[in-house]
Amino acid sequence: MTTSHRRVRLGMVGGGQGAFIGAVHRIASRIDDRYELTAGALSSDAARAAASAAELGIAPDRSYASYEDMARAEAAREDGIEAVAIVTPNHMHAGPAIAFLEAGINVICDKPLAATEDQAQAIADAVKSSSAKFILTHNYTGYPLIRQARQMVAEGKLGKLRIVQAEYAQDWLTEVIEGTGNKQADWRTDPARSGGGGAIGDIGTHAYNLLGFVTGLKTAALSADLQSFGEGRKVDDNAHILLRFEGGARGMVWASQVAPGNENGLRLRIYGDKGGIEWGQENPNVMTYAPFGQPKQLLTRGGAGLGGGGSDWTRIPPGHPEGYLEGFATLYKDAADLIQGTGDGALLPGIEAGLDGMWFINACIASSAKDGAWVAR
Amino acid sequence: MTTSHRRVRLGMVGGGQGAFIGAVHRIASRIDDRYELTAGALSSDAARAAASAAELGIAPDRSYASYEDMARAEAAREDGIEAVAIVTPNHMHAGPAIAFLEAGINVICDKPLAATEDQAQAIADAVKSSSAKFILTHNYTGYPLIRQARQMVAEGKLGKLRIVQAEYAQDWLTEVIEGTGNKQADWRTDPARSGGGGAIGDIGTHAYNLLGFVTGLKTAALSADLQSFGEGRKVDDNAHILLRFEGGARGMVWASQVAPGNENGLRLRIYGDKGGIEWGQENPNVMTYAPFGQPKQLLTRGGAGLGGGGSDWTRIPPGHPEGYLEGFATLYKDAADLIQGTGDGALLPGIEAGLDGMWFINACIASSAKDGAWVAR
Amino acid sequence: MTTSHRRVRLGMVGGGQGAFIGAVHRIASRIDDRYELTAGALSSDAARAAASAAELGIAPDRSYASYEDMARAEAAREDGIEAVAIVTPNHMHAGPAIAFLEAGINVICDKPLAATEDQAQAIADAVKSSSAKFILTHNYTGYPLIRQARQMVAEGKLGKLRIVQAEYAQDWLTEVIEGTGNKQADWRTDPARSGGGGAIGDIGTHAYNLLGFVTGLKTAALSADLQSFGEGRKVDDNAHILLRFEGGARGMVWASQVAPGNENGLRLRIYGDKGGIEWGQENPNVMTYAPFGQPKQLLTRGGAGLGGGGSDWTRIPPGHPEGYLEGFATLYKDAADLIQGTGDGALLPGIEAGLDGMWFINACIASSAKDGAWVAR
Amino acid sequence: MTTSHRRVRLGMVGGGQGAFIGAVHRIASRIDDRYELTAGALSSDAARAAASAAELGIAPDRSYASYEDMARAEAAREDGIEAVAIVTPNHMHAGPAIAFLEAGINVICDKPLAATEDQAQAIADAVKSSSAKFILTHNYTGYPLIRQARQMVAEGKLGKLRIVQAEYAQDWLTEVIEGTGNKQADWRTDPARSGGGGAIGDIGTHAYNLLGFVTGLKTAALSADLQSFGEGRKVDDNAHILLRFEGGARGMVWASQVAPGNENGLRLRIYGDKGGIEWGQENPNVMTYAPFGQPKQLLTRGGAGLGGGGSDWTRIPPGHPEGYLEGFATLYKDAADLIQGTGDGALLPGIEAGLDGMWFINACIASSAKDGAWVAR
Repeated sequence: MTTSHRRVRLGMVGGGQGAFIGAVHRIASRIDDRYELTAGALSSDAARAAASAAELGIAPDRSYASYEDMARAEAAREDGIEAVAIVTPNHMHAGPAIAFLEAGINVICDKPLAATEDQAQAIADAVKSSSAKFILTHNYTGYPLIRQARQMVAEGKLGKLRIVQAEYAQDWLTEVIEGTGNKQADWRTDPARSGGGGAIGDIGTHAYNLLGFVTGLKTAALSADLQSFGEGRKVDDNAHILLRFEGGARGMVWASQVAPGNENGLRLRIYGDKGGIEWGQENPNVMTYAPFGQPKQLLTRGGAGLGGGGSDWTRIPPGHPEGYLEGFATLYKDAADLIQGTGDGALLPGIEAGLDGMWFINACIASSAKDGAWVAR
Repeated sequence: MTTSHRRVRLGMVGGGQGAFIGAVHRIASRIDDRYELTAGALSSDAARAAASAAELGIAPDRSYASYEDMARAEAAREDGIEAVAIVTPNHMHAGPAIAFLEAGINVICDKPLAATEDQAQAIADAVKSSSAKFILTHNYTGYPLIRQARQMVAEGKLGKLRIVQAEYAQDWLTEVIEGTGNKQADWRTDPARSGGGGAIGDIGTHAYNLLGFVTGLKTAALSADLQSFGEGRKVDDNAHILLRFEGGARGMVWASQVAPGNENGLRLRIYGDKGGIEWGQENPNVMTYAPFGQPKQLLTRGGAGLGGGGSDWTRIPPGHPEGYLEGFATLYKDAADLIQGTGDGALLPGIEAGLDGMWFINACIASSAKDGAWVAR
Repeated sequence: MTTSHRRVRLGMVGGGQGAFIGAVHRIASRIDDRYELTAGALSSDAARAAASAAELGIAPDRSYASYEDMARAEAAREDGIEAVAIVTPNHMHAGPAIAFLEAGINVICDKPLAATEDQAQAIADAVKSSSAKFILTHNYTGYPLIRQARQMVAEGKLGKLRIVQAEYAQDWLTEVIEGTGNKQADWRTDPARSGGGGAIGDIGTHAYNLLGFVTGLKTAALSADLQSFGEGRKVDDNAHILLRFEGGARGMVWASQVAPGNENGLRLRIYGDKGGIEWGQENPNVMTYAPFGQPKQLLTRGGAGLGGGGSDWTRIPPGHPEGYLEGFATLYKDAADLIQGTGDGALLPGIEAGLDGMWFINACIASSAKDGAWVAR
Repeated sequence: MTTSHRRVRLGMVGGGQGAFIGAVHRIASRIDDRYELTAGALSSDAARAAASAAELGIAPDRSYASYEDMARAEAAREDGIEAVAIVTPNHMHAGPAIAFLEAGINVICDKPLAATEDQAQAIADAVKSSSAKFILTHNYTGYPLIRQARQMVAEGKLGKLRIVQAEYAQDWLTEVIEGTGNKQADWRTDPARSGGGGAIGDIGTHAYNLLGFVTGLKTAALSADLQSFGEGRKVDDNAHILLRFEGGARGMVWASQVAPGNENGLRLRIYGDKGGIEWGQENPNVMTYAPFGQPKQLLTRGGAGLGGGGSDWTRIPPGHPEGYLEGFATLYKDAADLIQGTGDGALLPGIEAGLDGMWFINACIASSAKDGAWVAR
């Protein structure tokens, strides 16, 4: 029997010329051919919005000067978009997310959820009231071996969990480059646009989300010591965090944007009373698994002995590396299945993950302000 | 100024349901949004061709029962395809390649060039007579650090080249799985379909092409010792090859499909009188560079100190791994630029690389048959 | 001119049959041929002491039933020992250390300094009053690349230090093996013999010592969260520690003996505003050095471009791996030079390092008891 | 019961001031405390011999001006040496080896066996006639994981062997440093002292010996392509070699001293129809083992799941790295057991390994001279 091909009609808010994460979302949406980019409010600058739309092959009448216009117009069209990707800076998530949710259009939103708790709560309320889906692109959960790890933990391969070591280290803010024309540095270190968090919001939330995704552990409390090493920097650029989980497991999180030699060093190590696993994002196709008392194993994406765990989330044979874009694409693929009713999206991060991330950011700031006092979840 | 977006109209020969490399070509063509898949002769089985086309969103009237029909019809259309991807087994390259070249349609052909020298020569003749372009997807040349390495060699960073060590090791044919329902194993070990070469044609040519791409060395002669370890196997599954280059450099090539623990172990090491570089495909975002007498350097794709060399061929920041599909996509991107006149395709493998690869396969077979006698280029 | 060879006469307290660290000290003392083992009080069990001495080639009249006898007798001999190695469990360091110091015999003592602060202070007083030297075998400071790292920090290669990440992970106590006949597990988890600390005393002090040795940073305060995951275990087997240093740098220390897959995972990462270095004990012959904005370098022990820094502390050419025993031996070599007046022992850990380690252990316990409150140095 | 300690009385020929390998032999002999260095003919220069002896604590009357004197005198003493280490350049092995064998004194000789086949045969004749033992220090066979690998092959863990990939790459002769005051470079590139082989004799024999030790395969024939890249160099500095083994397995050997970035890169990879192993000397405490169809395992020296295989040949717990000197020491330890009758020396390389190595060197030279013609064993 033949399945006729139907792509999800996708719109985008933000992501115009010069943006970084917008381009990533677009590539991710194309890899598995499940979307067509149909509409956009790509920039708050009308000329740039139009130019960007033209470059991307969006019809002029589907290029909007504002997300409000876009939500209204697209909801009214027979052939309107079915989903929208929101790829604006953090403080600009809530507005469009709520507008599209209210218009009944599915939302795929970049992380973290928002800049403030109020914004986050407003999105959560809109999700609750809407029939549309809400997906938060904690893209690292799309790596096949991360999903493999999650499955192994759930199957008890590690036994009762004891220790989680998560870290996300970069070096691009080692020097103070905000204010020198670097747009990414500008908004990510501006509390008004990023929210109060710097490294903890930009990358710490990824590490925090990922450890929760893999382990299933619920945080009980955290203690944080945040620093701003860059002179005059207004947000944290390095964070040392201790975690306590329900059930007794403990963790450490290190997030830094000032650690020379680290490009995008997201690493996760998890230990239970029966085994341990270790994984790093920069070479994501390999994970070590140490069953206690036996030789350590090198698990590879889709490789020998994986018991099928990796096979649904990977496109090419083992040894042919998949990377960041493919992991991201898996979220888009799952989202397409969810939207088109061919999948349940069970592994997709959503509003709960978003609220948990917001709690994390705010708890870190609160704890650090109180000299590391434990803040309960 | 605004550039209006225009995609290259792409057709495909082969690559229907159940195929591997066809899907890879399609993803590669989508990643940079430079193509739209418009027509296909996806299978020699008419029903499967139609079903595959429907799944891929190809209009029924652009799904053809044969490549001959397709070349004729598409050449006649105003909105006919501008390029065709040929992703059939090796012995089925020449027919469509020649047909489309004669029709003036650009050809993107999977490697190796053909199954026989006669076929190869016929394609070469057609390329010569045609105004259309011919691109051979030696995809590993699309990895940014491979292009970086080529540039470093050209700039003299390694000095005068002396030694090349290339290898491509896999293990999927360790057991004799041909004849057990594995289509990939079936045609790749069938001399009628693969050409006379097994491992040397399937993967050895990649290693040989890559070392030539990076070093620019011209082969003077080779000596080969081929084996078929799989019982009853009709083609080589392991090959040990010595190379002599013009100018005095020497090389070794090891290609194997029976080396347990190796998934897709393409590795390249090059040494000159001033330095050496080492790179492996399974973690393609890192390369070591050892300037003689100084500490070894870890170069990363797009990373610190690369002098821009990697930047044109990469999409995302260092530390965000790109993989096999992105490398492949870079060939498609370059091909689009070549076809649309926005690039010169200087780095794209073409008919010369194809003929050189055919020489390599046949010289290996001839040398091995003569107990390793040197065969001159 | 010829130098006549003269070895330091060495005695040993503890280290009889079945001991681990005693054998390590003996090998370390032999590697550079600077010592001869001449006397011993190898066990508190007289028969085992005698048997052990015979096996080690110690003359019967130099084998003592107690360290008190040994200190007295050896001090009285013309050819008495010049140094004594104390390799007993922690709670048995103070007695012999003080006895030999008072007898004017140089002391080489295993770490940590003692089981209690009172014992530690008593040793410190004895050191002050004695003309003899006191060396604490924080053996990891003997690795050539660690000394190289220290030198690089001192030279400003990393700029102003900001972040220290130290960890020491093992897995041998994942299951509760104390009480099952494992002597090492028994005393190391018995607060009476180990002091109050488990992992923090046994391995955490090594990590803490090492980070101080390399960075030269002074600790301002720490916050600790200690756990005993092994059921019924009386000491910590996992520790999460935050550090604040004078001058503003911050650090994290993770010490664990329950992390499956980790054998002896002592790792050190240090970042300043100009560069970073990373080193791991399990492959100690390699260290990465990332000057900010330039490619990361792989420094090797004695290797290209090290500027001589590694050459005094290494015996064989680069690429010929030196290991744990050689690093340990370098402390013995430096101690021999100090004792014989051919070196100043400037790099040897002594009583100050010992007291600092005791502070670390006790501060961790105190902080953890107060829910992670910061304890000032 | 008490075992009284008795050390083997050891002499040394060569190894005076400024020598490299002599110092290595001495450290290796001390590590397990089974030898005392008692006599020496340390240099052909009498003054240097005496000075070297004094530095090493050898009594003046046991320091000899020639090995002939030493063999005669020591054989006549009641307390004469029981074994002699020969650490002279290759062309100076035969004389002392024969002299000591004829004197009934056990010989521990550095590799390769000799500079010429005649010398080698003369040593072999002397071994045959003598009651004394002959040990050739192919030291890399002493690495615990190498012995583990040998055992795994013998137990059939890899199945029937198919492919051997061995390499030994260095870079210290990248530039022509012979004739500039570098003693090591001088004699190792002088055919009169090294024998006809350069890299093949100095390091190629190690690789060849090691692959035979681990696999137990018998060589049937080899084909070689030797180069001298250093201008004016009189011996090979790079060698590409193909091997055929009895029973059908095949191999490649690459030996180079002109590969920038390689310090002492001895690597061994072995594949059979059931699995593969890979090991590298620069981090010798880890080996990968890939049972076909299952995840690759990381075996560590003495580590989890090794089934005891590594335990006799290692001194310290897993994770505490042992290195080059410990591997070398294991040969000395086994030799002491053999000499004292407490072991059978079954794993020690001897005269057969020496003759096989000589065949290898000469066959490489002969094959290369005949354009790579196969030379049968």
